[in-house]
Amino acid sequence: MTFDFGILKATDLGRLGRLITPHGVVETPAFIFCATKAAMKAVSPLQMRQADTQIILSNTYHLMLQPGGDVVKNLGGLQKMTGWNGPMLTDSGGFQIFSLGHGSVASEVKGRRLTNRPKTLLHINEQGAKFKSYIDGKTYFLTPEESIRIQRNLGADLIVVLDECTPYHVDKTYTQESMRMSHRWALRSLKEWGTHDDGRQKLYGIIQGGVYPQLRQESCDFVNEHNFFGIAVGGSLGASKEQMHDVVSFTMEMIRKDRPVHLLGIGGVSDIFSGVRQGIDTFDCVHPTRLARHGGALVKPKNNPSDTREHINLRNSMYCNDCDPIENDCGCETCVWASRGYIHHLLKSQEMLAYSLVSIHNIYFINKLMKSIRDALGNDTFDSCQKEWCLMESKGQK
Amino acid sequence: MTFDFGILKATDLGRLGRLITPHGVVETPAFIFCATKAAMKAVSPLQMRQADTQIILSNTYHLMLQPGGDVVKNLGGLQKMTGWNGPMLTDSGGFQIFSLGHGSVASEVKGRRLTNRPKTLLHINEQGAKFKSYIDGKTYFLTPEESIRIQRNLGADLIVVLDECTPYHVDKTYTQESMRMSHRWALRSLKEWGTHDDGRQKLYGIIQGGVYPQLRQESCDFVNEHNFFGIAVGGSLGASKEQMHDVVSFTMEMIRKDRPVHLLGIGGVSDIFSGVRQGIDTFDCVHPTRLARHGGALVKPKNNPSDTREHINLRNSMYCNDCDPIENDCGCETCVWASRGYIHHLLKSQEMLAYSLVSIHNIYFINKLMKSIRDALGNDTFDSCQKEWCLMESKGQK
Repeated sequence: MTFDFGILKATDLGRLGRLITPHGVVETPAFIFCATKAAMKAVSPLQMRQADTQIILSNTYHLMLQPGGDVVKNLGGLQKMTGWNGPMLTDSGGFQIFSLGHGSVASEVKGRRLTNRPKTLLHINEQGAKFKSYIDGKTYFLTPEESIRIQRNLGADLIVVLDECTPYHVDKTYTQESMRMSHRWALRSLKEWGTHDDGRQKLYGIIQGGVYPQLRQESCDFVNEHNFFGIAVGGSLGASKEQMHDVVSFTMEMIRKDRPVHLLGIGGVSDIFSGVRQGIDTFDCVHPTRLARHGGALVKPKNNPSDTREHINLRNSMYCNDCDPIENDCGCETCVWASRGYIHHLLKSQEMLAYSLVSIHNIYFINKLMKSIRDALGNDTFDSCQKEWCLMESKGQK
Repeated sequence: MTFDFGILKATDLGRLGRLITPHGVVETPAFIFCATKAAMKAVSPLQMRQADTQIILSNTYHLMLQPGGDVVKNLGGLQKMTGWNGPMLTDSGGFQIFSLGHGSVASEVKGRRLTNRPKTLLHINEQGAKFKSYIDGKTYFLTPEESIRIQRNLGADLIVVLDECTPYHVDKTYTQESMRMSHRWALRSLKEWGTHDDGRQKLYGIIQGGVYPQLRQESCDFVNEHNFFGIAVGGSLGASKEQMHDVVSFTMEMIRKDRPVHLLGIGGVSDIFSGVRQGIDTFDCVHPTRLARHGGALVKPKNNPSDTREHINLRNSMYCNDCDPIENDCGCETCVWASRGYIHHLLKSQEMLAYSLVSIHNIYFINKLMKSIRDALGNDTFDSCQKEWCLMESKGQK
């Protein structure tokens, strides 16, 4: 069997599933870690496996600019090239093009924050999107067909249709027009994928519609009725956690139940619990690894002196002489030997090893969290699991 | 047994030895890798071991400024803190203070090159050296006693006396005065070490005297007759490879044969062969790991398209689509899966993983080289070993 998705158990608190790809099995709910430019930055593929990682993703936008889809293909495709050799997903390139174009998610790119970044999106029309490379200023024109062709060269198991990633600040009319164009793009993506389908890749559709229930309904109907293997919930989810919860909630009610559902770009611990309760199968976010590179280590509520943040900041001078590991009860490759004091020193000295050590912890932490969630869904102990892992539940806040 | 040095076999082409420390055994000739700020930058302690590393060193100068010797002691000492738990050496701090002060080895510090770096050495007198921290401008006064105290807190197995690291451009009179002061400092270091000796650390003396045979003789006599466990060859070795060879050669003839001899700061492949022939037991240099962070991968002559450089530059666009590993016949953690093309992409994208992958290769390469040298000394096949590893010998050049 090359591809399959099966639901092992469906409950009101979430569902247990199994996503099968040519490169391996993903037990869901699962977290997809971001190897943006075909690398987990400070973590090797072996270390990713040792941290119990199931699946990673790379970004078509970055890879089409450097080294290019053809080079990745020449080097054996993403899984072989990166040494990961496990399940992978690529996005369509749309998110970065449009977030850069709209200037809203600038810090995503190049791993650093530039507040006055020049906008690189030059033009959008029915055919596709024209933008400038952030590397050398060269002009590119990305169409739905071209995105699929590039993703075919990249060779990930799961690929995604090109969409216009509409920002929050546009109105309902713009959101509706944009959504309908994204639907037309999705049909073109589906056609391009289907014409060359050799069984190696499956295509995800994306649900747009912003915060508007009526548009989400239209988008769900569209994605439900076409031949997508999986469904991604995209577009603007609102301006607050409450609104995100509402948007995901009413959207999930309209989605057919037999396909894997991915929530794009969400990755905080409480957000994951919220998503699982609504039936989400997979999540992705740069949060665990980006946080790590700033010295933030994810910890369980019982190991957390804070009532508000899900992590501790190892740059804080209070950790200078601290001989304990990040978490005493953690089994990750970092916590078995490295003290908070040592990591604090490495962060102050800007040693690359710091980013590696904290990233490994955060990746293991998230994988352990997802495993606990799966176990809890299996054993009907979801509420106590959430209390153990989720700061708000644990410390009695809302 | 906590400390010992034994010569297993002495030949005209070098000697085989065994250096025993409380943290493990070092088979010599051996290479000591530089964990400057108590980290191998992009390589974890586990990866160091997997690359067959025997011993590493850290720099007192950097660690006294950040995090401070007392903090390292609180965190369990260098071996425990770094997770290395193997044999270690620390230098005295002198090299960085004086090289920064004289402005000659500026690129050493902070891992980057600053050509107009302000000189941080404020004052040298009989008592010690006054300098400014490159981190916060704070003033420090390092004496021979203080260097030993800091090294005691750091806790490496092998420690080194504070000396004035005289540059090449000074005259014989300055070199002689400086050397004699370094000898007086060495006696103070020896006294401070002996007063607190608990069997955990052994002290190396340093031979000064620049390029002058008469001064080298005086310095060898001094170091030979005092109670140093090991001997380091320091000071200026001249302005060319030929002069270095001559200086090391006549110096080695004057050194007693029963102590381990370390050649400070030398680490090219041909230099290692030259040193081994002269009886050197250990080498250290930032070269293999610094080179790696610039994309330079050490390769054997048979894998090297160049007749002049001991490495290939993976940043070169010729490697863009190259599916081969750095070396096909290498067994390192990198070469078992990573292609030159992938590493080229990572270097172009400034991904940290690139520095990690090439560093691992270069460390393994040097450890394999030292193992080959030891085997060759044992089997009396040194010349063919040198031909296999050394570009000049292999390609018939001088």
